[in-house]
Amino acid sequence: MKIKNPFFYKKSNITLNKINKVLNKKPSGKTININDIKNLIDANANDISFFNSIKYLEILKKSKVKYVISHKKYEKIINAHCYPIIVENVLKSVALISELFYPESINDAVDFNVSKPVKSNYKKVHFGKNVLIGKKVKIGKNSVIGHNSIIESNVEIGSNAIIGNNVLLKNTIVGKNVRILDGTIVGKKGFGFSPEVISNYRYPHIGMVIIKDNSEIGCNNTIDRGSLSNTVIGKNTFIDNQVHIAHNVNIGDNCIITGQVGFAGSTTIGNRVLIGGQAGISGHLKIGNNVQIAGGSGVIKNIPDNTKVMGYPAKDIRNFLRENK
Amino acid sequence: MKIKNPFFYKKSNITLNKINKVLNKKPSGKTININDIKNLIDANANDISFFNSIKYLEILKKSKVKYVISHKKYEKIINAHCYPIIVENVLKSVALISELFYPESINDAVDFNVSKPVKSNYKKVHFGKNVLIGKKVKIGKNSVIGHNSIIESNVEIGSNAIIGNNVLLKNTIVGKNVRILDGTIVGKKGFGFSPEVISNYRYPHIGMVIIKDNSEIGCNNTIDRGSLSNTVIGKNTFIDNQVHIAHNVNIGDNCIITGQVGFAGSTTIGNRVLIGGQAGISGHLKIGNNVQIAGGSGVIKNIPDNTKVMGYPAKDIRNFLRENK
Amino acid sequence: MKIKNPFFYKKSNITLNKINKVLNKKPSGKTININDIKNLIDANANDISFFNSIKYLEILKKSKVKYVISHKKYEKIINAHCYPIIVENVLKSVALISELFYPESINDAVDFNVSKPVKSNYKKVHFGKNVLIGKKVKIGKNSVIGHNSIIESNVEIGSNAIIGNNVLLKNTIVGKNVRILDGTIVGKKGFGFSPEVISNYRYPHIGMVIIKDNSEIGCNNTIDRGSLSNTVIGKNTFIDNQVHIAHNVNIGDNCIITGQVGFAGSTTIGNRVLIGGQAGISGHLKIGNNVQIAGGSGVIKNIPDNTKVMGYPAKDIRNFLRENK
Repeated sequence: MKIKNPFFYKKSNITLNKINKVLNKKPSGKTININDIKNLIDANANDISFFNSIKYLEILKKSKVKYVISHKKYEKIINAHCYPIIVENVLKSVALISELFYPESINDAVDFNVSKPVKSNYKKVHFGKNVLIGKKVKIGKNSVIGHNSIIESNVEIGSNAIIGNNVLLKNTIVGKNVRILDGTIVGKKGFGFSPEVISNYRYPHIGMVIIKDNSEIGCNNTIDRGSLSNTVIGKNTFIDNQVHIAHNVNIGDNCIITGQVGFAGSTTIGNRVLIGGQAGISGHLKIGNNVQIAGGSGVIKNIPDNTKVMGYPAKDIRNFLRENK
Repeated sequence: MKIKNPFFYKKSNITLNKINKVLNKKPSGKTININDIKNLIDANANDISFFNSIKYLEILKKSKVKYVISHKKYEKIINAHCYPIIVENVLKSVALISELFYPESINDAVDFNVSKPVKSNYKKVHFGKNVLIGKKVKIGKNSVIGHNSIIESNVEIGSNAIIGNNVLLKNTIVGKNVRILDGTIVGKKGFGFSPEVISNYRYPHIGMVIIKDNSEIGCNNTIDRGSLSNTVIGKNTFIDNQVHIAHNVNIGDNCIITGQVGFAGSTTIGNRVLIGGQAGISGHLKIGNNVQIAGGSGVIKNIPDNTKVMGYPAKDIRNFLRENK
Repeated sequence: MKIKNPFFYKKSNITLNKINKVLNKKPSGKTININDIKNLIDANANDISFFNSIKYLEILKKSKVKYVISHKKYEKIINAHCYPIIVENVLKSVALISELFYPESINDAVDFNVSKPVKSNYKKVHFGKNVLIGKKVKIGKNSVIGHNSIIESNVEIGSNAIIGNNVLLKNTIVGKNVRILDGTIVGKKGFGFSPEVISNYRYPHIGMVIIKDNSEIGCNNTIDRGSLSNTVIGKNTFIDNQVHIAHNVNIGDNCIITGQVGFAGSTTIGNRVLIGGQAGISGHLKIGNNVQIAGGSGVIKNIPDNTKVMGYPAKDIRNFLRENK
């Protein structure tokens, strides 16, 4: 499913000179148009991207991108493949450039374009009381929107979907037969900052949330949208209540995620993963297929396919239970 | 308090032949009416029940039920007491039969029968703004319903109760002097599945939530209704914010449960139990009276009366503190 | 920032004789007016206070307060500085006296004085749909109040603030440039009881919540108001989603607190503290400046400045990681 992001207005006419100016660097000589800022995986030849960890080296080698923001220590590596733009603080620089392309992406807390649904626009959609619908919202037939729910502008919902009461959807694309239950908030900007703690410089979040067909999201959950890529919930994945899913998390198909589980940013979860209540998964991890994570576990490293883990930090469940008899 | 479930319409005229058909089994010869599907404790002679663990053997021996769904490995045991109906997947079979009796119990996400309260129907009840009330709702005198709250059809609330703002009650019976604070969601279907992960076949939830007199439920809690029995909160029990209580949990009287605690399904908590913040209690456990569970603990086995535990997995608090100096 | 509490009506004409009567003690001879009940730090000469732990001895020595409720075991210590009022249960006695001064502080679940905003009263404030505003609410210019949010009476919000959708503010003072995101509930009474578990005698909460300039509070958080002092969120502090902050917690400036973290009552957090997801901090602790607490940690003792901790119970992060390779 390749989905065009309908949510954030991207400025055109951004040149490498403008970017250099934002970064307090000298202008390059000629006018070079830059189309967008993207992560290394998605970036095309006329985009700009960034490199801040050696573990992305293989991706860098395959990338067609020409301009890459990075630390001085990676200058040589990048030079072998494309043009490095060396800065002191990579994430802050990425934030500044993202804001240049997407000036509206920082403060989108409230959509003032919502109003009562014009029911003739939505055939066979059943709306509850006090529903608020933004502009250009698409809702498939036989779907239900519960009382007091707010569907912000440009959100797309598939057919046969059930959106409960008091639900808030923004920057989100919802598949068919999806259920999103009461009090859940989807699509808020993520909690990502540049490392300069003092100023708490927020990282722009121009991604969205994609919830694939047949999934169920329980009550009082929070699912944040991605920063440069998307937050994704796979097909036929069931999520219980009070679960928090941070920006850029990618959860596979057929997973079952129990109450009060938390996912930090940018972690990838495979297919058919079972996660017990209150488990926490650190950021930037890769959890394989068919993994089972016992309730209360704290996962702080990658987990290979077909593994059962338990504990904090999580380890093989047999070892954990033997050590904790 | 023996309460008749007013929430789910039960089909009559269900015969053993219909049940066998749903289970893809041969019809029995004659017409035998089955009244209901219940758990072993509650099932009467003309109901059907199920048996999927040897730990329920004593209950089976005392039960008057005639027909019991089970695995092949329990066939002989059941035969000694009543008629076994042998299936491959007990929980899925129970789900299929429950759906036969209660076809409306799967999708009840939104009650479209709610409307503004007809205040003459509710004497001495103080309603906030934008309150929505379903059909056949009962509310005792001197009770308060806060702004934007939704009380779905058939819910019953006792006298002197305080329901806060943005509260959602469904399939719930609330006692006298109970307070349910802002943003709490009570009575949603539980997060129970048959073990066939791939299809995520949801287990019907035809139980309800019963909140007894003088209890307090804090903000942004989620309390799911029971599947075949009820979720119960005892008298004078106080629950803090962001607590999750799964289906069929039974909490005793005079308990104090602190913020962000989570209970997995079907666990029983005694009286005068104190649970510290963020503790998690696994499913199907029995926690005794006067138990104290320290904050952050992960409880994965039964706890006898008058015990203090701490740790993950939780153990005697003195041992935990000695080992973790 | 010294802020007068605008929320709770304090009774005047409370005498020491009235207080003795409430405590079932003999009246003192003459009429002595008592102005207020306060904690030892804030109490003035004509207030009453309490002393229930030797760790507050230095504060007692410096206090100008004349009357101090305490246990028999502290009678001599107090006698050296002021008049002890000896009771069996200090916290319950404090609760009873607080109720004498602030009779309305127990049940404030719903503010029935709210109504649609009179927009002419709020210049340059942008209100969403279905907003409810109490009496004497102040909102600074260029602030935004999202859809379905409720701002209860006497709440004060600074300029350039963004209040999201479905937010509930009570007993709260919000600074400039603060963002409080969707579904968050601020200012509910805390979860504090006297130790008599059976009766669950609630401790009055006459404090408020103060959120200082430039801070951000994420989605579906709960922040309870203080009992005798205030709950405070410092300047430029960022809080993620589903965080629970109990009564009297005091968080410093420039902190970053990640999703699902929980704080028990009366804990103090320094400046520039980073707390990872799902960490829990016990009550009555002092966490220093520049402390880093890893995700999932359970903190049960004070942490000095400039320390990194991890684990449950939390310890030096190097020790924890070495022991858990």
